[in-house]
Amino acid sequence: MSRIYWYQGRFLADNEVRISPEDRGYYFGDGVYEVFRVYGGRLFEAEAHLARLRRSAAGVRLPLPHADEEWLRNLNELVRLNSLQEGTVYLQITRGTAPRNHLFPPQAEPVVMAYCTDVKRPLSAMEAGYAAITLPDTRWLHCDYKTLNLLANVLAKQAAADRGAADAILHRDGTVTESSASNVMIVKDGRLVTHPANHLILHGVTRAVVLRLAAQTEIPAEERPFALEELFAADEVLLTGTTIEVMPVISVDGKPIGSGRPGPITRRLQREFEDLISS
Amino acid sequence: MSRIYWYQGRFLADNEVRISPEDRGYYFGDGVYEVFRVYGGRLFEAEAHLARLRRSAAGVRLPLPHADEEWLRNLNELVRLNSLQEGTVYLQITRGTAPRNHLFPPQAEPVVMAYCTDVKRPLSAMEAGYAAITLPDTRWLHCDYKTLNLLANVLAKQAAADRGAADAILHRDGTVTESSASNVMIVKDGRLVTHPANHLILHGVTRAVVLRLAAQTEIPAEERPFALEELFAADEVLLTGTTIEVMPVISVDGKPIGSGRPGPITRRLQREFEDLISS
Repeated sequence: MSRIYWYQGRFLADNEVRISPEDRGYYFGDGVYEVFRVYGGRLFEAEAHLARLRRSAAGVRLPLPHADEEWLRNLNELVRLNSLQEGTVYLQITRGTAPRNHLFPPQAEPVVMAYCTDVKRPLSAMEAGYAAITLPDTRWLHCDYKTLNLLANVLAKQAAADRGAADAILHRDGTVTESSASNVMIVKDGRLVTHPANHLILHGVTRAVVLRLAAQTEIPAEERPFALEELFAADEVLLTGTTIEVMPVISVDGKPIGSGRPGPITRRLQREFEDLISS
Repeated sequence: MSRIYWYQGRFLADNEVRISPEDRGYYFGDGVYEVFRVYGGRLFEAEAHLARLRRSAAGVRLPLPHADEEWLRNLNELVRLNSLQEGTVYLQITRGTAPRNHLFPPQAEPVVMAYCTDVKRPLSAMEAGYAAITLPDTRWLHCDYKTLNLLANVLAKQAAADRGAADAILHRDGTVTESSASNVMIVKDGRLVTHPANHLILHGVTRAVVLRLAAQTEIPAEERPFALEELFAADEVLLTGTTIEVMPVISVDGKPIGSGRPGPITRRLQREFEDLISS
């Protein structure tokens, strides 16, 4: 099935997109990216994704070649050309193409690539909940930048699958940070707790949406580091992410969380999220 | 100037090499690499590089598509086809091409790419020595795997250049690990000290050669963590790496090391290294 890419300012069939072997994305993972959710043919929380893109790019000193309104116009056109109703838009920007040298290439122009994927909402998984494992967080110290250096995330996700789990919850010296590709929240005695948005976690767009929904529905929420012990002793555990939305975690390392079924706060947040995206 | 790549089992002109946008090297930096030195048309320490390649690949669970003798045969052929006398061979292997998903793609074949570059020995820099700066080491916790996740190294090297220095010496909470792209050694009272070859540093091929030369010339050497304070108080500081060989560091953060000129142990090791590559 052919799809249309947005690549270097042009809309091209996928078989026309060929990356240079000297693209710094390929040598160094020297680039940043975003995954936007599309519901009903429209980009969801696009401004928040673009704000994070600007933040990631500034963090790795990559000058973005477009302003927000140009990103929006072209990504919307991409969605239209691909007739995407429900899915994701992947957008990636690398520092450009140049002979391999760690130093920033003085002449190179950023390489921009975007494409759409049909992705259904994971309704049955959201109903049943995830099994997760725990793993040490081996990533670098700028997890707040959404970059192409994702090998630690890849290895964590695969380790989870190898043990029959859907995701790996990461901890740094016993403090829970996030999962291989989403943020982690726990519920204890009716309170939502999640790691502060510092350099150790991605500042998830869905994380921010869920904290906003919690505030609107008067669920008390706290952003503070919490330990593995609190994770295991939680009444509920949930993950938040662009494609998984609000995902219950019903067991960790084979031990049930709370009742072993998705809890009431998680369900409430799922309903609120559902209302938001339907509106 | 056209050069010949070894790409997916074939020898191709550079303009014939085009990478798929779905190569996991491009999405995730999901791959490993080596840079081999070529002196007099021959690969230097090829077996050590291939042993490290196997170690890196095992570390990230990437099954290598060739055995050592096949790597050697093809890389030697690449050197011959490019008429390379003095330079480097860059070899990179990614996990393959597949729709973007963190999980290992069940069907994908690794993508292999190699090419040669003319690189002269940095004789005048080796004579004069480097100015270096210090920076926190923000990299992930498997620096012993030589992977394509190099953004922290890129940013460190660029930060050094921005401050007029040739390299950045990295430290983790005050313990010196290595530099942005080479290993770091200090000399104090005639003893060579360098960080142990654990998960926090790359196990440099040149590092191992230099430790071997030190043993042969009865320079006492110790592999132990050392602090920034010891770096600044050292009689000599040197870097070791495939392209920089044995590189004196004459100042760090603008402060002279020892006399502010390359010291006698560094000079001795440079001579021994020179003898080795001439032989």
